[in-house]
Amino acid sequence: MPIRTIVWGENVHEQSNATVAGLYPDGMHGCIAAALNTGAGISAETATLQEPDHGLPEVRLAATDVLIWWGHAAHGDVADRVVERVAGHVWAGMGLILLHSAHFSKIFKRLMGTPCTLSWREAGERERLWVTSPNHPISAGLPDHFELENEEMYGEPFGVPEPLETIFISWFQGGEVFRSGLTWRRGAGNVFYFRPGHETYPTYHDANVQKVLRNAVRWAHNPAERLRDVSQAPNRPTGAAPEPITERGPKLHKPGEEGFR
Amino acid sequence: MPIRTIVWGENVHEQSNATVAGLYPDGMHGCIAAALNTGAGISAETATLQEPDHGLPEVRLAATDVLIWWGHAAHGDVADRVVERVAGHVWAGMGLILLHSAHFSKIFKRLMGTPCTLSWREAGERERLWVTSPNHPISAGLPDHFELENEEMYGEPFGVPEPLETIFISWFQGGEVFRSGLTWRRGAGNVFYFRPGHETYPTYHDANVQKVLRNAVRWAHNPAERLRDVSQAPNRPTGAAPEPITERGPKLHKPGEEGFR
Amino acid sequence: MPIRTIVWGENVHEQSNATVAGLYPDGMHGCIAAALNTGAGISAETATLQEPDHGLPEVRLAATDVLIWWGHAAHGDVADRVVERVAGHVWAGMGLILLHSAHFSKIFKRLMGTPCTLSWREAGERERLWVTSPNHPISAGLPDHFELENEEMYGEPFGVPEPLETIFISWFQGGEVFRSGLTWRRGAGNVFYFRPGHETYPTYHDANVQKVLRNAVRWAHNPAERLRDVSQAPNRPTGAAPEPITERGPKLHKPGEEGFR
Amino acid sequence: MPIRTIVWGENVHEQSNATVAGLYPDGMHGCIAAALNTGAGISAETATLQEPDHGLPEVRLAATDVLIWWGHAAHGDVADRVVERVAGHVWAGMGLILLHSAHFSKIFKRLMGTPCTLSWREAGERERLWVTSPNHPISAGLPDHFELENEEMYGEPFGVPEPLETIFISWFQGGEVFRSGLTWRRGAGNVFYFRPGHETYPTYHDANVQKVLRNAVRWAHNPAERLRDVSQAPNRPTGAAPEPITERGPKLHKPGEEGFR
Repeated sequence: MPIRTIVWGENVHEQSNATVAGLYPDGMHGCIAAALNTGAGISAETATLQEPDHGLPEVRLAATDVLIWWGHAAHGDVADRVVERVAGHVWAGMGLILLHSAHFSKIFKRLMGTPCTLSWREAGERERLWVTSPNHPISAGLPDHFELENEEMYGEPFGVPEPLETIFISWFQGGEVFRSGLTWRRGAGNVFYFRPGHETYPTYHDANVQKVLRNAVRWAHNPAERLRDVSQAPNRPTGAAPEPITERGPKLHKPGEEGFR
Repeated sequence: MPIRTIVWGENVHEQSNATVAGLYPDGMHGCIAAALNTGAGISAETATLQEPDHGLPEVRLAATDVLIWWGHAAHGDVADRVVERVAGHVWAGMGLILLHSAHFSKIFKRLMGTPCTLSWREAGERERLWVTSPNHPISAGLPDHFELENEEMYGEPFGVPEPLETIFISWFQGGEVFRSGLTWRRGAGNVFYFRPGHETYPTYHDANVQKVLRNAVRWAHNPAERLRDVSQAPNRPTGAAPEPITERGPKLHKPGEEGFR
Repeated sequence: MPIRTIVWGENVHEQSNATVAGLYPDGMHGCIAAALNTGAGISAETATLQEPDHGLPEVRLAATDVLIWWGHAAHGDVADRVVERVAGHVWAGMGLILLHSAHFSKIFKRLMGTPCTLSWREAGERERLWVTSPNHPISAGLPDHFELENEEMYGEPFGVPEPLETIFISWFQGGEVFRSGLTWRRGAGNVFYFRPGHETYPTYHDANVQKVLRNAVRWAHNPAERLRDVSQAPNRPTGAAPEPITERGPKLHKPGEEGFR
Repeated sequence: MPIRTIVWGENVHEQSNATVAGLYPDGMHGCIAAALNTGAGISAETATLQEPDHGLPEVRLAATDVLIWWGHAAHGDVADRVVERVAGHVWAGMGLILLHSAHFSKIFKRLMGTPCTLSWREAGERERLWVTSPNHPISAGLPDHFELENEEMYGEPFGVPEPLETIFISWFQGGEVFRSGLTWRRGAGNVFYFRPGHETYPTYHDANVQKVLRNAVRWAHNPAERLRDVSQAPNRPTGAAPEPITERGPKLHKPGEEGFR
């Protein structure tokens, strides 16, 4: 079965900005999904902010292996209940890939536990991404570096927890650097942040960027069955202890009582 | 100047449960603060849920180096605005130490980005903590293991992100194990979770536990001046780029415009 | 193409100890290889200390995706040149799985940069492995814990660098704990240490242990083409810099000169 | 007691190259030690390759809290027994700071378990170091970035294990990036790699570089008493098990026998 992937786009500037609409007539999400669908073993669809439940109802997420997220102007319009729903699926095993300005998305901040800040400049300058982990599944098949002639600058410090691994670091023409590809695990879910993708430039048409995205989908995919009850703290009663023990001492909880939360 | 430490206690079972009141006549927070104050270079006070702002107004947190948190029955009563205030100070450099049932506190879940689940059993069984990182600042001066004759069991899996370092792992008489001492960094703030401390047992009177707490306060202390604006994403305009560049290509933002959040 | 796997066994106690020979008439390596070959997409062979080049000549390693290593009594008999050869292949992308007493193998110590020490006891006691990272590729399909009725005890502290991820922690009947499943990356190579496997017990006949090994082979497999020149530090001359620059200042090296090593 | 620090220099180009001798009349090691001695609580001396035991006899290392290492042209002349001696002290708690071309020193490769490769160019270009972990003890008091007008370029990929934390990333005028400040722990010893310091430039006279070095000495210092027997794997006999157990099953080892190594 192919890796069932949803590319989520907020789909705002595609509708309101002529430059963006010209670059991405099917939306950035549409462009990315098309690029993914050229990859063996990946089946990608799209979802957008404007759909009911932002296109991410429970039943659809339950049938999704990897979710890609692009947002910028409308982070605040994403419903908190959908954010919690997505977080729950990540903890249970769904892969999540955050693109560019999604550093400030609710779901990314929710999973990182930090402000996810950075500095930025919109000057169409040159970005050069260096591979710091050669032949990591996400960098497989890439040259040791590749360039994007026009990109928005993001500069360090990037306000995130130390990653599991650093895959890319960007050099910017104006003098800054940025950790452009970082991985984390949250529960059974693999999380990848990838920096490029300002909406006024043709970044998602770039062949190397598209290869990174296909690699990342394959890396993020956890083929195990989704975990259940990821937010439960089960009581294991004395009689069910792996080793026989006898209860001792004073107790706070009555038999069968649930724990506090 | 000594390390200015606040021991926060929810102070519920000390008031309502005779066993807890008997073990901790000054509250668990009072017992812990007294143990810290025997340590050179530490100055500890207490704060409780029942005080205005839970005893953690902005001006007091700004003058605090390390905050210790014990909560259990009343996690839900902690005001969200206080949780965000504490998180902000951690990101800016305040140390935070979470004890036992604080695994389910709002502040810990906020900073981890995961459900922080575990399994549990209240049977007064024996816990043996093994040092996995000898001579780490938090384990300095401890034997290779130490025991608590009566403790609540917490069992793996512990639903937290991979730690920076694992310092202790517990063996339980009933057959479980648990990563009992874990470190993370969130922004400029050091975070330590330490497992022992069920309220119906005399855990915080134990000499080894007290040594761990003093060590942990010293480890968590970041002597640098608190960071400012940890949630800002500053624009660095083209004219202020470290290297001279010329703006190119289409732009989304007008000059001086703030970024989206 | 299946994952080309070699199970390396030192094959000493199988020849000299009746208990071991009885448990593993085809050698521990033979038992493990057979268990792997029941897994879809895995093709496993064996190699032993006694073969020329210990069964690991360059041409064979070059055609190997994952190497599994079991050694105990004869660590010192493994030729240093073979250890370096294996290390080179790991850095270039070959997966490596170290079993039990291989904690003291030359290759593991070589890749960790630490003494890889632990404490131990041979008493046939019960070991219970707890999954700390549910649905990690290595723990997929396992129950939350499983038992081995008779095993050698290994106790913390385990003298290794902090892992990328902790997958299993063991509880021992005699009171100790041990991080029984740990991952690292070394270059493009995935490295996994798995604790169980004392030669006088039937550990490698256990269904859960066999599942872990099959999972680990799939996790360790890096399908990318092996990296070349992993020990080279190439000079990138001024004329080949990605951005045009002019040489300035005094120089130590003459044009075209190699760097010091 | 101040932090007892040794700055080790190979002291080759200071003797043979007029540029280096002119920049560092007291040797690079002498310049660094003088900078450290301006810091409160640090007491720094030097040692060089040419001294007996390279100036690092057992008795002197035993009385050293932090060792700083600069080498380049003569890595191969460092005696293996001294390398093992230094490694032993790091595992036992001595801090170690590796500078610039020490990426290829025997001791760094020994502790990392990887080739520690990179790409390089000697063109006197501008390097700009960005702080990626603000207010980390090593970056405390620094601006968000600082520049070195003339430096050798080091480019990614840097062939080292994932660090505990990334503190600095460098931007180079010629278009490359490099993780310029990385931390690891090896046993009880803190290890820091800091990139700048090509011998033909006045890098170690730079105020920010000197501040980093003083910060790093304080961070690397482990005040706990040195660990003993860091390479031992002690047997814990059945009678000494924390929990009473009865020996079962066949045994490989005779009572009191040492383990294999």
